[in-house]
Amino acid sequence: MRELNQRAVLQRLRDHGPATRPRIAADTGLSKPTVGQALLDLEQHGLVRTAGRTISGPGRSAVVYEVNPAAGHVLGIDIGRGLIRVAVADLAGSVVARLDTRNKARSAGALLQSVRSAAEDAVAEAGLRMADIVSTVVGTPGVPDHRSATLRRAPNLPGWERKGLLNELSSLLGTDLVVENDANLTAIGEYEAGAARDADVFVCVTVGTGIGMGIVVDGVLFRGAHGAAGEVGYLPYGWPPPSSPPREGLLESAAAAHSVVEMASARGLSVRTAKDVFTLAREGDARALEAVEEEATRLAFMVASVAAVIDPALVVLGGGIGKNTDLLSAPLERALAHATPLRPTIVPGELGEEAALTGAIATALRTARDVVFERRGQAL
Amino acid sequence: MRELNQRAVLQRLRDHGPATRPRIAADTGLSKPTVGQALLDLEQHGLVRTAGRTISGPGRSAVVYEVNPAAGHVLGIDIGRGLIRVAVADLAGSVVARLDTRNKARSAGALLQSVRSAAEDAVAEAGLRMADIVSTVVGTPGVPDHRSATLRRAPNLPGWERKGLLNELSSLLGTDLVVENDANLTAIGEYEAGAARDADVFVCVTVGTGIGMGIVVDGVLFRGAHGAAGEVGYLPYGWPPPSSPPREGLLESAAAAHSVVEMASARGLSVRTAKDVFTLAREGDARALEAVEEEATRLAFMVASVAAVIDPALVVLGGGIGKNTDLLSAPLERALAHATPLRPTIVPGELGEEAALTGAIATALRTARDVVFERRGQAL
Repeated sequence: MRELNQRAVLQRLRDHGPATRPRIAADTGLSKPTVGQALLDLEQHGLVRTAGRTISGPGRSAVVYEVNPAAGHVLGIDIGRGLIRVAVADLAGSVVARLDTRNKARSAGALLQSVRSAAEDAVAEAGLRMADIVSTVVGTPGVPDHRSATLRRAPNLPGWERKGLLNELSSLLGTDLVVENDANLTAIGEYEAGAARDADVFVCVTVGTGIGMGIVVDGVLFRGAHGAAGEVGYLPYGWPPPSSPPREGLLESAAAAHSVVEMASARGLSVRTAKDVFTLAREGDARALEAVEEEATRLAFMVASVAAVIDPALVVLGGGIGKNTDLLSAPLERALAHATPLRPTIVPGELGEEAALTGAIATALRTARDVVFERRGQAL
Repeated sequence: MRELNQRAVLQRLRDHGPATRPRIAADTGLSKPTVGQALLDLEQHGLVRTAGRTISGPGRSAVVYEVNPAAGHVLGIDIGRGLIRVAVADLAGSVVARLDTRNKARSAGALLQSVRSAAEDAVAEAGLRMADIVSTVVGTPGVPDHRSATLRRAPNLPGWERKGLLNELSSLLGTDLVVENDANLTAIGEYEAGAARDADVFVCVTVGTGIGMGIVVDGVLFRGAHGAAGEVGYLPYGWPPPSSPPREGLLESAAAAHSVVEMASARGLSVRTAKDVFTLAREGDARALEAVEEEATRLAFMVASVAAVIDPALVVLGGGIGKNTDLLSAPLERALAHATPLRPTIVPGELGEEAALTGAIATALRTARDVVFERRGQAL
């Protein structure tokens, strides 16, 4: 019972911020003496601390308690083809160190070393040692297969599908490490702090160099039977498929960044990147607008597919392509309205390129809070 | 605690059949006196009964207990365009009455009357009154929308989308009524007693006059944000869509029963039903085989879509078309292998046209067991 009461009090402080003993009692339904005992225990464990006294209102001033953010720290890492993003956060979720490193690695070994040193630098910047980190979550392209300790379907990072890679990551970053698909972490990020706060069934689609999607149901990732749920790059766009289907998947080969460039080039535009196409479209270039419209129609195929299978309330669009919702959403909605009665709300992501890292920190915090609670409990 | 112990004992008897007191104690981890008290309580409530004594083995013979199947009854109804299927089962899940009625109704009012009288007939055949039914589950095409008490997307039953229809069903069949999409109940049926026993993430696709799909995750239906999860008839087959897309959905208009007839007719065959096409194909008719192969390719589009979105371990195929897996599965697997690395296992349904009714009974039993337990508990 005593531990349950401590958890209830801690939960109250985490979810709704600092509070006095009577306030906590009112919110949790526990008696004031029970709350007092729980606060005493939690303070001794280093999990709760005092944060001053109330100064306004009638009666005597009362002590205000808050979660002790320094009770533990977590590490979040987002491995992308261009950048390795690292953040260290305290148990209250405040980022205490934040660092970007260019990913210049041309082999898995080099990338592993870059990740390790980026992590060490960020932890040092936070004034901590690696041993102080309670929980680490790494986001990466690909689908972790835990039986073989391998990442599957991560062709964009050289050597990254090699056997035992997950074990190598663990030995570099600690055994409590969780490796998660970056599109999944992006979805968790948008759920915790972005466009999908409190959505019960939603998907978050990342369209950029590749195409990925995270599915979140009641705040929890839906992974499917083999962790490949949301691998919408493999949706059967252009059916029946050509005689040599693209390795990266039918939809991905038709709707990821390079296709936007191809669609613009086919219309006689001289552009190097998808970003150029969107810039021209925003300036009113007719051919660029056509290419954007074509891209939107292809994305509508994806949204229609997802809606027919899992009926999400919300589709969050992100990634280098997806973030151009200002241009994409009208033609996308038009194509959808024409084709299907199942039309989820489509909104842009709010966290941009920070979404996966935010999701990594949020995921690490979920674990860390329990771990810290149990460790401190045992130590007494 | 006493109620928790009773529940544990009851659960043990339901899941693993009749047993003696020591056996139940060993299986539940409860002490023998606790089990004895729980059995006494449950017998007094009429929920458990004795089923004889052990006769073999060393030592004294012991009393064997079992769930009292007569403690309550449930009603399952499957409303199809051709037939109304009704079953009454006892709490042990044994069907005690089973009845089929032709659906000749041309209006919602007439169909409601047919359903009501079929239900009454089945209940009378079981020697019961309607008031003895603890829980009723009705399967029907369409998506129940509880806010408006209306069925959406049930175009194949005349008038069945009319406003307040769910209230009309409740006033005819009792307020504890649950109305569920028939494809969802088919999936539950195959999970409880068919091809998907114990599958953790699977889908069950019904291809016949229409196309439907139920998604089951850890034994529970996944319904999506508005109950439309699994409405795969709306998958965007043939993208971009024609200028006047079919009301029943792009995939449904391309792969339901009538399309098989059209594909065969287009090849010069004179056939009236999809069944005729499969019969000819089984006799080796080359044009019928071609039509079947084309149908399989369209179904492969659906399986590829579902795999890319939710990564099921298993796809169960059923319905008038789906049940021809002997002919469909080879070309389907071929098309899939060519197009995507995500390839779930595809198996035929085991329950055929009884699947939705089996699912209705199973769903009703889940509710009824709790209801009966609570009612009997209060009566003492």
